[in-house]
Amino acid sequence: MKLPRGFTAAGVRAGIRKKEGLDVALIVARDGANAAAIFTKNQFQAAPVGLSRQALRASGGRVKAVVINAGCANAVTGKAGEEAARSVRKKAAQLAGCPEKEVFIASTGVIGVVLPAGLLTQALPGAFEALAPTALDAIAQAILTTDSGPKVAQKTFLWNGKRATVTGIAKGAGMIHPDMATMLAFVMTDIPATPALLRTVLKEAAAPSFNAISVDGDTSTNDTVLLMASGALPGDPMDTMEEAASFLDAVTAVCKDLAWKIVRDGEGAGRVMEITVTGARTAKEARLAAHAIATSPLVKTALSGGDPNWGRILAAAGRSRARLSVKKVSLTAGDVQLVKDGAPTAYQEKDAAREFAKERVPLVIDLGAGKATATLLAADLGHAYVSLNADYRS
Amino acid sequence: MKLPRGFTAAGVRAGIRKKEGLDVALIVARDGANAAAIFTKNQFQAAPVGLSRQALRASGGRVKAVVINAGCANAVTGKAGEEAARSVRKKAAQLAGCPEKEVFIASTGVIGVVLPAGLLTQALPGAFEALAPTALDAIAQAILTTDSGPKVAQKTFLWNGKRATVTGIAKGAGMIHPDMATMLAFVMTDIPATPALLRTVLKEAAAPSFNAISVDGDTSTNDTVLLMASGALPGDPMDTMEEAASFLDAVTAVCKDLAWKIVRDGEGAGRVMEITVTGARTAKEARLAAHAIATSPLVKTALSGGDPNWGRILAAAGRSRARLSVKKVSLTAGDVQLVKDGAPTAYQEKDAAREFAKERVPLVIDLGAGKATATLLAADLGHAYVSLNADYRS
Repeated sequence: MKLPRGFTAAGVRAGIRKKEGLDVALIVARDGANAAAIFTKNQFQAAPVGLSRQALRASGGRVKAVVINAGCANAVTGKAGEEAARSVRKKAAQLAGCPEKEVFIASTGVIGVVLPAGLLTQALPGAFEALAPTALDAIAQAILTTDSGPKVAQKTFLWNGKRATVTGIAKGAGMIHPDMATMLAFVMTDIPATPALLRTVLKEAAAPSFNAISVDGDTSTNDTVLLMASGALPGDPMDTMEEAASFLDAVTAVCKDLAWKIVRDGEGAGRVMEITVTGARTAKEARLAAHAIATSPLVKTALSGGDPNWGRILAAAGRSRARLSVKKVSLTAGDVQLVKDGAPTAYQEKDAAREFAKERVPLVIDLGAGKATATLLAADLGHAYVSLNADYRS
Repeated sequence: MKLPRGFTAAGVRAGIRKKEGLDVALIVARDGANAAAIFTKNQFQAAPVGLSRQALRASGGRVKAVVINAGCANAVTGKAGEEAARSVRKKAAQLAGCPEKEVFIASTGVIGVVLPAGLLTQALPGAFEALAPTALDAIAQAILTTDSGPKVAQKTFLWNGKRATVTGIAKGAGMIHPDMATMLAFVMTDIPATPALLRTVLKEAAAPSFNAISVDGDTSTNDTVLLMASGALPGDPMDTMEEAASFLDAVTAVCKDLAWKIVRDGEGAGRVMEITVTGARTAKEARLAAHAIATSPLVKTALSGGDPNWGRILAAAGRSRARLSVKKVSLTAGDVQLVKDGAPTAYQEKDAAREFAKERVPLVIDLGAGKATATLLAADLGHAYVSLNADYRS
């Protein structure tokens, strides 16, 4: 796959990540791009998050170059971390020939270690020399941490009679939870669009995708999603949601595809449950119940074992702040109804076990208290998760 | 250890639990006891929870007999479950020669299975015949599920010039979290005290003990703590908190001891962190931050691996709703200061590793936003937890 028209990229190795392979991704919009971004809601925001948020505001939503590193999150690193991030941005602006405010930076990796800016600035000239429209796989590879492989999604749509493209890359496997996660995603398109429209489209596309997945309930200090439009396809910039229907569909599809790939690749995940809560009093309560189920270690370990231990699912919903009617509650897994009107049905254990053995386990819990709904994808919790995380730093 | 004066007990096997050994505990207060109880806040409350709450209210806080079974929680079992619980209570009242409202019942085990009442009512006559003041160990054993061993705590204190006793037993290893857990605790004393005083004492004693522990963030459908005073020691019933100082101390000490034993025996727990949050804006926010840390799978797996990966601790606090000052935040583990004024200190890795290798890891995080504090004990999450829970029912 190639990048959308107007973008070039390069993946290089700076030696920031201990593990071998690429660890720096560079994306350059030849003539600049309009852009919108969403950042983590964690109060500890990494140095690059703060700087990129300010830059995007200062430039009025213009981005010329994006520099992403893996191996170091540069979060909770105080002044030293901010200075390191600034020096990288300065060097990238010189090489790109643009103001610093048009450089967008992002980092991912271990928290509490200051970014080794020297390694990165030394690697940048080579990255700029290597820029190519074919480097999609290289940058998808360069941003990974504990991911098992690159995550790329692409969707085309008709715009102004021409075939336009939305292409995204993402990383993320741990600290995955709404709102946002240890995840980075960069989505590019070749149509022209105003920053205001991009903001609206990104917000709508993120809700059912990146904000509806959970690996471990943790949200990270570095989460960033950036949407860029190069405008390489000629035409007036798209400015209203009325004209953006097919564009929104394409961006949402790409974000959902990337989100599924993130949760499916959740650290050590063996299977994923698709939790749909119905019959809640409000949408907020539906999300509360879904989150309680998605983050319950008892539910997640049972899922890992393929055990249809549905009592844990109800217990999690029951301790959430979502109101429910204990006499109306029902639960289905795939085609099998397990609970109806607050009591177990006469289901066959082997049918339930079959549903819980699938790669994607669809659970529908009706709280019997209203009409609001929510859906969340959540990874299981097995030995592989523990092995990965009990000793990630060593 | 013996039971406090005025109480006799028996542990028998009814065959409810698949695993061999005792599975029914019976406690009888010879002349009845004044009592107070705290129940789970989960919206799915097991049949025995509802019945015991009603009974205690109807009797004005009087309890003659307590029947507890392991192996079946009798929760989310609808009408059939309630009828089963009622039949057990009826039989126990006949054998004890008391009204049904003076029988307190509790169940623990798998959710979603109706209590096999026949097995229990058949076992009760033998249990009443076996009643003895020395059966403390037997009942402590009979209420266990995934616990690795019995949990007993005792404390004596001077009352009216005589040595009075507070004795407690508890079970609980999974679904442990404030407020309440898959835990049962029964605390007995030989002093006379009014039900109103017992309610106040129990509430105050539970806050820093049973409501300050977390194994997995889940709260169960069956949690119950019962405090009973036989009044076997002669004297006027204790009625005001002014005269209850040493009694409150003793009950709190017993509850804290039992709570520590529960979290230390958390399913598969290798070590426990004692999380103290200081500098919060409000007590509620201090608890929010402590809970976020206590339930973070990333923090808990790092703890399991003895890895001082403190970035995860700050990230968990940062995503909680507790306000914090990112420039004032500090973190210590034991004697080692890891973070000061929002940035890492020049601590030695081996010193940090030494603190995280202890059985009990004291963590103090100062949010730098106020003066409120909270403390929580939380178990780690390792392979043993996954092994126990991926496949608990089979």
